[in-house]
Amino acid sequence: MSDSEHAGGKGRRKPITARELARLIGVSQSAVSRAFTPGASIAAELREKILRHAAEVDYHPNAIASMLSRSRSNIVGIVVSDMQNPFYPALIEKLSRALQQVGLQSLLFNIAKGSNLEHQLSAVRRYNVDAVIVISATILSGATLRWVTEGRAAVLINRVVDGGELSCVACDNIAGGRAIADHFHQLGHRRVAYVAGLAHTSTNLERQNAFITRVAELGMTLGGHFDGGEYSYAAGRRAALEVAAKGNIDAVFFANDILAAGGIDAFRDEAGLRVPEDISVAGFDDIAMAGWPRYSITTFRQPLDEMVQVTVGMIEDGSCEPGQSATIRRLSGELIVRKTTGPFVSR
Amino acid sequence: MSDSEHAGGKGRRKPITARELARLIGVSQSAVSRAFTPGASIAAELREKILRHAAEVDYHPNAIASMLSRSRSNIVGIVVSDMQNPFYPALIEKLSRALQQVGLQSLLFNIAKGSNLEHQLSAVRRYNVDAVIVISATILSGATLRWVTEGRAAVLINRVVDGGELSCVACDNIAGGRAIADHFHQLGHRRVAYVAGLAHTSTNLERQNAFITRVAELGMTLGGHFDGGEYSYAAGRRAALEVAAKGNIDAVFFANDILAAGGIDAFRDEAGLRVPEDISVAGFDDIAMAGWPRYSITTFRQPLDEMVQVTVGMIEDGSCEPGQSATIRRLSGELIVRKTTGPFVSR
Repeated sequence: MSDSEHAGGKGRRKPITARELARLIGVSQSAVSRAFTPGASIAAELREKILRHAAEVDYHPNAIASMLSRSRSNIVGIVVSDMQNPFYPALIEKLSRALQQVGLQSLLFNIAKGSNLEHQLSAVRRYNVDAVIVISATILSGATLRWVTEGRAAVLINRVVDGGELSCVACDNIAGGRAIADHFHQLGHRRVAYVAGLAHTSTNLERQNAFITRVAELGMTLGGHFDGGEYSYAAGRRAALEVAAKGNIDAVFFANDILAAGGIDAFRDEAGLRVPEDISVAGFDDIAMAGWPRYSITTFRQPLDEMVQVTVGMIEDGSCEPGQSATIRRLSGELIVRKTTGPFVSR
Repeated sequence: MSDSEHAGGKGRRKPITARELARLIGVSQSAVSRAFTPGASIAAELREKILRHAAEVDYHPNAIASMLSRSRSNIVGIVVSDMQNPFYPALIEKLSRALQQVGLQSLLFNIAKGSNLEHQLSAVRRYNVDAVIVISATILSGATLRWVTEGRAAVLINRVVDGGELSCVACDNIAGGRAIADHFHQLGHRRVAYVAGLAHTSTNLERQNAFITRVAELGMTLGGHFDGGEYSYAAGRRAALEVAAKGNIDAVFFANDILAAGGIDAFRDEAGLRVPEDISVAGFDDIAMAGWPRYSITTFRQPLDEMVQVTVGMIEDGSCEPGQSATIRRLSGELIVRKTTGPFVSR
């Protein structure tokens, strides 16, 4: 490891070790270690003294050595598969910063659809990470998720897997789907449609079933449900053209905002429909673009900050460790009414 | 480490070690190690045999142990600071996949603007990563970059630092700035403007200086240059309103696409200007949104795939290691003419 760290200054000096630093200051090596461990028991004055001397001699605790002695790596594996939907970069950004604030770094495992998943995921098992967070888990089966996270602390974000083995943090998709149906109904819409992302995923099924159930409860008509095939702008465009071809639809709930953005553009540019005068559109997530004046999408906001906070909390308090019974946390979202939904105008 | 890996199957068996696997097959432990090391010298037949047996007993080489023996971690640190601009998630996605393909994982260091940078960056120095890739380096000074990467293999993407110590991979921003000026001139525009992102960054200065120089060479008039203050949609909107208030501008070059998207929306929605009939707009990067029919932004495409390939190549061949003289690679981009630029129409 001596090649990887160097003391400051011009020359390539050998880095100072914890033992040398301890001798230099006249404290125990364990005190040096505790000074650099967040939350460790050490007098504030002693910690201050050690950190001051450490800065002077450019001492940095070696993360790998520290890991071996504590059998913790301070690294959390993050498994992602879709960074094109702006929801995920925003989530990863917040998550990696929140982890950093408690002394954890994020090791990214970027899983590509279609290619050999087991081979890609075997890397996750090879690294001694303290925990695994799986986001955009839509392309992984429950069995694969259990295999990847086996024996590890693990949290799934935005996905719930049955069986009670995996801890999950998700938005209350059911309340979201119902809220959109209620909103459409209050605006006077009676013939509505649903556009799925990946139809078989838990996220989609929850939103779809809740929406359709509420539509039926309220006596509205489901004028069609369409499958985008993926959560993308292009899929939203394609689905919108199908909706327009079918005709006679008052309002459409797209399974997320990036689908809705594509749908709105296709309605306006290709189908010659005004949004919301001719057709109302709602999405889900509240990505930044949904708030842009040009889109101004009515949507159901996922509580990103809270999802991140709860996830990091589960890792910190150990409640997502394999010995524990799995925790499922459903966090409340919020209907955000903007300009893509409006009152029904008889045509 | 015995807690972190488990053999397959129902029970929690202790994982098999390299030594046990070697005995089982009757080969040397070194052969087992070489079988799992990409590029290591080993007969194809022997490797095949070892990998087959390893799969049968669910053996996984331990990345940490392997790191200690080879003093390589197979981890590359990626320092990022801006995931809101879609250019960066797209780059990170491609980069992390390309690294994975050569057996390297990405450890993410997500640096927040404004807060204590040195404190945040000290984490980068603590981890025994094989190399550091810094992207969106705009918020770090040259001195800070040298400190973070000291003694490490390192590549800056999308940023060039003077002094010849750091290897850099960047798009040819100068050719890009000139190409946009030439394009405006060919369309008949004579009064043009420039909107900066972060004015002091090398990326911005290169695009800005090249554009303004070419504007002057062609005898066009620089009707104004504006500072967005950041590379964001909101900054693009604000700058466009300043351009519109100033008036009498034929065409505007925004320093990147996300600025241009905000600018186009503000011109159309708030300033009542048609794009391109009343004012032409060009961006830079070619993010996915630039290709959406609603935006259809004329832009200068950064060669993302090639930038990723060259960066990973520098890490693989060791040319970005500290002993080597720094390599600066300027890759060619491409002018993509879409619908936000058009011929000058006298008003």
